[in-house]
Amino acid sequence: MNDSTQSAYEALCQHLRQTAVLESIDHLLGWDERTLMPVAAAEHRADQMTLLAGLIHQRNTDPQIGHWIDVLIDSPLAEEEHSDAGTVIRQIKRQFEKLSKLPQSLVEQLARTAVEGQQIWQKARAEDDYAAFAPIMKKTIELKRQQADAVGFPECRYDALLDDFEPQERTSNVRRVLAGLRDELVPLICQIADSGRSPDIGLLRRHYPAAVQEKFGQQAARRIGFSFDRGRLDETVHPFCSGLGPNDTRITTRYEEQFFPSAFFGILHEAGHGIYDQGLRSEWYGLPPGKDVSLGIHESQSRMWENQVGRSRAFWEYNFPHAQAAFPAALADVSLDDFYFAMNDVRPSLIRVEADEATYNLHILIRFELEQALMEDQLTVEDLPDAWNQKYEDYLGARPTNDADGVLQDIHWSGGAIGYFPTYSLGNLYAAQLFATAHRDLGDLDQQFASGQFDSLREWLQQNIHRRGQCYPAAELVELVTGEPLNHKFLIDQLRAKLSPLYGLS
Amino acid sequence: MNDSTQSAYEALCQHLRQTAVLESIDHLLGWDERTLMPVAAAEHRADQMTLLAGLIHQRNTDPQIGHWIDVLIDSPLAEEEHSDAGTVIRQIKRQFEKLSKLPQSLVEQLARTAVEGQQIWQKARAEDDYAAFAPIMKKTIELKRQQADAVGFPECRYDALLDDFEPQERTSNVRRVLAGLRDELVPLICQIADSGRSPDIGLLRRHYPAAVQEKFGQQAARRIGFSFDRGRLDETVHPFCSGLGPNDTRITTRYEEQFFPSAFFGILHEAGHGIYDQGLRSEWYGLPPGKDVSLGIHESQSRMWENQVGRSRAFWEYNFPHAQAAFPAALADVSLDDFYFAMNDVRPSLIRVEADEATYNLHILIRFELEQALMEDQLTVEDLPDAWNQKYEDYLGARPTNDADGVLQDIHWSGGAIGYFPTYSLGNLYAAQLFATAHRDLGDLDQQFASGQFDSLREWLQQNIHRRGQCYPAAELVELVTGEPLNHKFLIDQLRAKLSPLYGLS
Repeated sequence: MNDSTQSAYEALCQHLRQTAVLESIDHLLGWDERTLMPVAAAEHRADQMTLLAGLIHQRNTDPQIGHWIDVLIDSPLAEEEHSDAGTVIRQIKRQFEKLSKLPQSLVEQLARTAVEGQQIWQKARAEDDYAAFAPIMKKTIELKRQQADAVGFPECRYDALLDDFEPQERTSNVRRVLAGLRDELVPLICQIADSGRSPDIGLLRRHYPAAVQEKFGQQAARRIGFSFDRGRLDETVHPFCSGLGPNDTRITTRYEEQFFPSAFFGILHEAGHGIYDQGLRSEWYGLPPGKDVSLGIHESQSRMWENQVGRSRAFWEYNFPHAQAAFPAALADVSLDDFYFAMNDVRPSLIRVEADEATYNLHILIRFELEQALMEDQLTVEDLPDAWNQKYEDYLGARPTNDADGVLQDIHWSGGAIGYFPTYSLGNLYAAQLFATAHRDLGDLDQQFASGQFDSLREWLQQNIHRRGQCYPAAELVELVTGEPLNHKFLIDQLRAKLSPLYGLS
Repeated sequence: MNDSTQSAYEALCQHLRQTAVLESIDHLLGWDERTLMPVAAAEHRADQMTLLAGLIHQRNTDPQIGHWIDVLIDSPLAEEEHSDAGTVIRQIKRQFEKLSKLPQSLVEQLARTAVEGQQIWQKARAEDDYAAFAPIMKKTIELKRQQADAVGFPECRYDALLDDFEPQERTSNVRRVLAGLRDELVPLICQIADSGRSPDIGLLRRHYPAAVQEKFGQQAARRIGFSFDRGRLDETVHPFCSGLGPNDTRITTRYEEQFFPSAFFGILHEAGHGIYDQGLRSEWYGLPPGKDVSLGIHESQSRMWENQVGRSRAFWEYNFPHAQAAFPAALADVSLDDFYFAMNDVRPSLIRVEADEATYNLHILIRFELEQALMEDQLTVEDLPDAWNQKYEDYLGARPTNDADGVLQDIHWSGGAIGYFPTYSLGNLYAAQLFATAHRDLGDLDQQFASGQFDSLREWLQQNIHRRGQCYPAAELVELVTGEPLNHKFLIDQLRAKLSPLYGLS
């Protein structure tokens, strides 16, 4: 390798690291907006985030990047596939070519509309007023169409948007995988409904004081491996995890004193995201080998800690006595079996974030289908609430009686996140398949969980997923680690194995 | 006025507004660093703030500003003295010429050293370890010398640093005013010490629960006019107020359960800063007519609400019954007179932020003299702790027994704020002089305070100070509003009037 290759590589990396610093500032603005910011400051916050989005876009599309890539793409540094340097060069080439097709003005409009949209959505949801939200939703859809058309797509517009969250994935492939899942999930849910059994979920609706929930949740997050030396837990309306720097990962939750699972599984979920973030190689911070590979993989990490671990009997064998000590008034007279069954209650409902592990994926399917229809001009923003309600009736057997509990329930669309929802179900599928492999590699995980030991699973994930950054695209990474392409059978098998004894299924 | 004048003016304002947006992002980074950020994130936060400081400096010294100023400085827009447009043009010319003399590398070094210095100081203070702090202090002093030498100064290096906080003020003038204050203050403090009287401050050291203090402090801040719709109150180690945008002013405090005045007067103080911030004209946000004029004036606003209002008997005539209701265990058996006397306890002490209204200015004098000696090479960083302790013995009759309670007690120097301390005493003097004028203009303020009415004073301040932004330099503004130049007699008169009856002075 000659000097000019080496110096181009170093200059490129330095440029990218500085851009990542700017992006991390944007993440602080976003985190603060959703946790602490006074409402009256929304307009100025939009100014701040718009300005930063413009600066970041300028840096991401700096023609100098093209020159560096030209020098590097055929150099020995890029030769080895999946190497760190090769990943930097190939991933940045891909990103640079994509982003260079987006006009700066569109990027700034998207950023501003996202901040404004979220503020309008918040009010519209609180007041159950879809008409107040429709104009900004229309604008968002129009901008996202422009975005897709500007960057181009292999098969359909939705591909271009999906790529922002699940790089190199195709809509047609997601459609196929989710259809396979649906075909096995719907009969399972019907079997459960027909079983005549159901847990006593009233025990979860007793009084669980918020301050105790916070402490209990923090302890659980710490035990599974979220580092509070390098992170925080705060309150918000719509929980999320945000990385503000290599040693600053912030998770958020919302406490409901009359419903225990809401905050607790929320914390496990966001801590799972946080553990991924904290497991990335910090020496590669801001560069593709030190970045998360896709939202689907990110979600697999949160889902695994929430569901495969947090809703397992073994997990509660360890934690239930602690829960009883923390919430004596609510849990003194409750058995582990009843508590465990209540945690795994399966029943169709209207609200995605409250949905159980099994029906959850039907909520995603609905959104995935509606998003595609919106992008392809097969559905108007005006007709969206009716279409939403109809699909809920068809897929889940329940029709929302108002838009706050219907089409207005999620923040995503208001912030311009179209193409995001399917990554939740991809996450569920990735989680199941990865967990099956971890189980095979690590022996009796149940025994470890039952004694409060989570280190071996977390280290396995760090080794196999976190530390690989973007060196493999998500689909390849899963195949590399598990030995086969993504397959919905792992999730179905795990659900059947857990739910059959609880519901007495054959 | 011709088209090119108008378009240069508009382009300049647009440029400045965008820079202000970047600066407000920097304020969020600083606010978060001091309230919530995990300690491990300090290094990355320094990267973020350094990058932003560089971007801001680039914008502040963009040669285009020079071209706009050239077009504008002799145009009709700049003609009228103290007009908004004239203020924009003259203030930016001044700032541009000053900042253009600073190399970008020095600006970035100053920003990085400030963040690192604060982190090192925090640990050094906690561990009472001056040796751990000395190297970064040395570096800071060296950088500040470079800064002063780069921008130049009329009489002494310290002038250049003072100008960052109290624009257009001279060291020699501050020295003269503070000497006048000292000459009358020292005998007054001696008289008090010799009076044989002192309040029972034990009643302030009873148990005041933090959560109740927070609520009580919030109510008081709201009542004097701090808007929580456009601001927040949070906890921190070293209380401050920060403006993050036209509708986002954040104040902070620290609760001591065994000492009531600490958080309460801290909140009044920071709310006073916040009310100034919220009283600026938001249509001029980011431009000189919408910015605070100087730290001395800023401090006058906080001090007035803290001291002239908050430590008055009238204020407690209204508030004491509420305090008794909020803290029944601590205050049920306490009389208003005893409480009021305890609030106005005067006695020499070692810690500036705990000092009373009278002795406080001696703490400032010590720092002001030491800073000048450091800048003029008359004192080394190694000898600083001894010099500090000697001056405390000379001026306040008490010698610190460790550096944590001595030279390490303040955050300022660690963050590169040299030339800042005298603005506190200027603030005290401005506050007294402005308050005397308000009293003359508004009639019986005591009667208003005693019935919980603070609107007329706040509106008077808004009209006379806040809404004028930087249209007058601080010294001129005070003269314009009060009819005479800054004079220490107002503060001395007010202290004598309040303290004489309490201490039975002749």
